[in-house]
Amino acid sequence: MKQQAKEDAVVERIGRRLGFVKNRTLALGLDDDAALWAPRRGHEVVLTCDWFLEGSHFLRGKHPPDAVGWKCLARAVSDIAAMGGAPKCFLLSLALPAELTGKWLDKFLGGLRRASRALGCEPAGGDTTRRNEVLINLAIIGEVRAGRAILRSGANAGDSIFVSGTLGEADLGLRGLRKGHGLSQASSPALQKHLFPEPRLALGHWLAERRLATAMMDLSDGLSTDLPRLCAASHIGARIELHSLPISSRVPVVEARKLALHGGDDYELLFTVSARNVSKLPKSFHGLPLTRVGTTTRSKTILLETDRGTEPLRPGGWDPFR
Amino acid sequence: MKQQAKEDAVVERIGRRLGFVKNRTLALGLDDDAALWAPRRGHEVVLTCDWFLEGSHFLRGKHPPDAVGWKCLARAVSDIAAMGGAPKCFLLSLALPAELTGKWLDKFLGGLRRASRALGCEPAGGDTTRRNEVLINLAIIGEVRAGRAILRSGANAGDSIFVSGTLGEADLGLRGLRKGHGLSQASSPALQKHLFPEPRLALGHWLAERRLATAMMDLSDGLSTDLPRLCAASHIGARIELHSLPISSRVPVVEARKLALHGGDDYELLFTVSARNVSKLPKSFHGLPLTRVGTTTRSKTILLETDRGTEPLRPGGWDPFR
Repeated sequence: MKQQAKEDAVVERIGRRLGFVKNRTLALGLDDDAALWAPRRGHEVVLTCDWFLEGSHFLRGKHPPDAVGWKCLARAVSDIAAMGGAPKCFLLSLALPAELTGKWLDKFLGGLRRASRALGCEPAGGDTTRRNEVLINLAIIGEVRAGRAILRSGANAGDSIFVSGTLGEADLGLRGLRKGHGLSQASSPALQKHLFPEPRLALGHWLAERRLATAMMDLSDGLSTDLPRLCAASHIGARIELHSLPISSRVPVVEARKLALHGGDDYELLFTVSARNVSKLPKSFHGLPLTRVGTTTRSKTILLETDRGTEPLRPGGWDPFR
Repeated sequence: MKQQAKEDAVVERIGRRLGFVKNRTLALGLDDDAALWAPRRGHEVVLTCDWFLEGSHFLRGKHPPDAVGWKCLARAVSDIAAMGGAPKCFLLSLALPAELTGKWLDKFLGGLRRASRALGCEPAGGDTTRRNEVLINLAIIGEVRAGRAILRSGANAGDSIFVSGTLGEADLGLRGLRKGHGLSQASSPALQKHLFPEPRLALGHWLAERRLATAMMDLSDGLSTDLPRLCAASHIGARIELHSLPISSRVPVVEARKLALHGGDDYELLFTVSARNVSKLPKSFHGLPLTRVGTTTRSKTILLETDRGTEPLRPGGWDPFR
């Protein structure tokens, strides 16, 4: 006498593969209506959510399921890094075709579990349903010391603009994947960055704890699309120096600069530092380069300085509604 | 010089229509990478998320957009009610076709905003993207006094099983909607319950504060599908008395009982009460009937008592993977 809904079998599989541990303060969510959790004293809760949709954000035929699992969590956690917070737990909303509830689901959950452990972000619950395409939504719950979160709105005119890492490499990796380089090339660093991005949690936390950044966000849609968002929140403008961008050395400079300006999916941090604090910033943080790429300005325009002069920098990154 | 991504215009519209208030402790989420929030002292955070997908959970041609807005929040909040908690804020993940970013979106947000105010659950952030179908995911963050949450796992054999309200009416309303009764019949109480469900927050909170329920969950997929979940979590079985079900008086008894056993979307509470506490339970709570429908048992089977004897109660409710 089978008295369990088929949906429950899928939910059980998810719990088992994710190493879902039952305890009262977390992880009730799979077995119960909701999960329970408490932040440490003196901390605020940081909340964010992120779509990861087949066809829009990944291609089922191109992206290996373990990379889908890793990346959906990593990119959502990147928003917590961008606040200077620490991720604590996540809710997984998953819709998928019945024929993917076996091997594909297991590999997906394998990648998700690896990310969960690497990023210190535990599964706390979720919702599962059937759909003809894979739809993923991650809600991340983290914590940050009260008053220490770095917002987008704190930059002042005259601050220096910094980015972490190299820009444009993930987009380069995506191009390779589209051309069919695929799994055989998984060892390519650009493809690796596209498939398995690493949110800059340690850097974000360090900048928040030391109050070194006046404003911060993560680069998910490309510098030319994301920078105006930080500037709008801070009621300022910016001037970017093209030659200073930390670009990929894998392609010619002109192409690499375009990728650095408009390429999405890097999940590096974009942050501003007041003149007084610039000298406190190291050239790199645990091996991750920190590069000054421009200055914020009183005018509300976003400008690009090139060898040929100064021109407006128009958003050329990812925009789902364009 | 337009330096704003089109996505940002959609996000702005959402913030404006939802009455998104900027303040540091909440509601950073639309303008920033994540939102900040803190529970009151002595409280735990309650976390849940819920899909609401065109074609799976609602029909764009049948369900008015304001009902979609109301219902997506109300049904997610129902999971917080089922824990005995109070909802505080939500993250809205919304994917929709570009042609719906005008009037449809406004009406949707109107319904969502009404629900947000009625349920005391403020918008705290979200993620928006374009898609050929409307995809909605709600993450709800609430709080509950530490140690007072009512789990699914607390029932003991011999407890009485109760439900709130009337069962099967929402499914009846859906049938009317499918037959094309539509908006002209929006005044029908069954259709009203289908379109604008009211999560039982006050009842859930009252049962939790008084420690009257040993286990609780909300009825979203139908009694025959949901009851086995509560029983599995509590390692018990159950015996339901068919004649005692609080059924709709709008259809013949045989049909009404089927709807009460298997109809989904009621968002009533299902809870268990120990023999010692049954007498403390009123017949109704602020006008909402509370009905004893059976008993939990040591055996792990789910049985239905009818005039013709006792038979197994098989899950016949909503199961996306069936």
